[in-house]
Amino acid sequence: MSILVVGSVALDSVETPFGSAERVIGGSGVFFSAAASLLCPVRLVAVVGDDYPFEKLEFLSDRGVDLSGVERAEGESFFWAGRYSDDMNSRDTLETRLGVFGDFKPRVPDAHRDSRYVFLGNVDPVLQLEVVEQVRNPASVICDTMNYWIEGSREALVELLKHVDILMVNDEEARQLAGEHNLLKAASWIQDRGPTHVVVKKGEHGAILFGPDQIFFVPGFPLEVIFDPTGAGDAFAGGFVGHLASVDSQEPDDLRRAMVYGSVMGSFAVESFSVDRFRSLTEAEILQRVLKFQEMTAFEHQLVESDG
Amino acid sequence: MSILVVGSVALDSVETPFGSAERVIGGSGVFFSAAASLLCPVRLVAVVGDDYPFEKLEFLSDRGVDLSGVERAEGESFFWAGRYSDDMNSRDTLETRLGVFGDFKPRVPDAHRDSRYVFLGNVDPVLQLEVVEQVRNPASVICDTMNYWIEGSREALVELLKHVDILMVNDEEARQLAGEHNLLKAASWIQDRGPTHVVVKKGEHGAILFGPDQIFFVPGFPLEVIFDPTGAGDAFAGGFVGHLASVDSQEPDDLRRAMVYGSVMGSFAVESFSVDRFRSLTEAEILQRVLKFQEMTAFEHQLVESDG
Repeated sequence: MSILVVGSVALDSVETPFGSAERVIGGSGVFFSAAASLLCPVRLVAVVGDDYPFEKLEFLSDRGVDLSGVERAEGESFFWAGRYSDDMNSRDTLETRLGVFGDFKPRVPDAHRDSRYVFLGNVDPVLQLEVVEQVRNPASVICDTMNYWIEGSREALVELLKHVDILMVNDEEARQLAGEHNLLKAASWIQDRGPTHVVVKKGEHGAILFGPDQIFFVPGFPLEVIFDPTGAGDAFAGGFVGHLASVDSQEPDDLRRAMVYGSVMGSFAVESFSVDRFRSLTEAEILQRVLKFQEMTAFEHQLVESDG
Repeated sequence: MSILVVGSVALDSVETPFGSAERVIGGSGVFFSAAASLLCPVRLVAVVGDDYPFEKLEFLSDRGVDLSGVERAEGESFFWAGRYSDDMNSRDTLETRLGVFGDFKPRVPDAHRDSRYVFLGNVDPVLQLEVVEQVRNPASVICDTMNYWIEGSREALVELLKHVDILMVNDEEARQLAGEHNLLKAASWIQDRGPTHVVVKKGEHGAILFGPDQIFFVPGFPLEVIFDPTGAGDAFAGGFVGHLASVDSQEPDDLRRAMVYGSVMGSFAVESFSVDRFRSLTEAEILQRVLKFQEMTAFEHQLVESDG
């Protein structure tokens, strides 16, 4: 099954304690596609400026990312520059230039309107809704958002939620959207407004799936070095939606596995700058890490005889 | 198997958004014993002042906590008063009076020196070492500590670590002790100094077991209401050590189950003031929550056929 994704295709300049990278490819659409395309075909809807090094996206099309929905507009591409703190727990945005992304009107190519899985990357909820309306009969709409839209476009966002099956946010965003500190209650507030499932990402602490009939936890993968956290959340989404689309199912067990694939892809994303880790990543390496997650979380219950 | 525990027996006055409790029984020794005694016999070494409502500890002795090691000294009992923030994520200490606890010299009764499992609650590492030296041949020494001792008694603490099998700390304490932000590296630093295992407690985010041959994650149990977080860490320790002692084993699978029992007991602790939730807690309720943890973390791996 193909995934349709709308998201940013950007140039990032990143400084971390381990080094720096200048104008490398990034953005939610790129990180999502790099991860998801290892699991199933992807169709990307985005816009870039005429300065974009389009040839650098070739490795994506080589592995099944359809770039025909990436519009090339006159002007500058979306540019972001940031610097991470020494402990990698916070980052300062040094510069953001929206460029052609500021006037982005996502157009889903006719050939892509039959997409069964739709991932709405973190853009204006008004645009996200326009994308949903262009897809004929999706099996699942998965949606990301951020504090900027929760604060500034709350009405549009709540309207959008009616069309969303799975909302994917971090813990602070979930709390802010619901106006509720308790995550269980915050998820329930969101579920009352459309999505059957809420995925709450908690960075190094892993992620939680809240569904109508289950709650499922996946930890963050323990790494000795977090080289560059940029794009981890989008890679998580890529692994999550990629797995669902590859099995074309949203059964509870498939959603659990999707959470694990999400956490696996997020953990690979942070091992290099940009999407570099995904260039060489093999099916065997992915599988190995999935099994590692199982090893780190599985326990057998046994009845304990109290001798007290 | 019996557990020997040294820890505080205190009176707590607690204010939370849900109400307040005045001079209720608390302290690491009490929370630990209340949880662990549901799984196996406990021997408590502690001191109280002559103002202590000793009869309030009777429910503990009724269920197998040997209080003969609790010394009654002239003077005031350890008293702590605190107030939690509205979101329960922080607390202010309003008052701490050490009382007789300030001159505490733990004496392990002769009859208790054969204890196989020893839990060193959060007291001065010099006293913790004295306790270890009084026990003849323990199968496992499990130790808690806090930032106060890490800062002020580092040398004594590092010396103590040579005698500790499992160090149980929160994530900030692990980082501070090791001088290392990355948790994997911090655990490894600690393991190089004695303990074979490190349990890192992360509050609502669960806990991680770092062992020589495994890493195991257990999430925090999702609760709609955190009534009073006081004692959750000590109740976690009670569930953890209680399980190990009840099966008298430290095999990898038993350590995993111990982590789950820890998280289960921690989750019950926060449902009421003081140790009230443990008064009525049944084996069936404990088992039910253990199974819930399994339900929330288990996933089956399956090979995914990529159609890309």
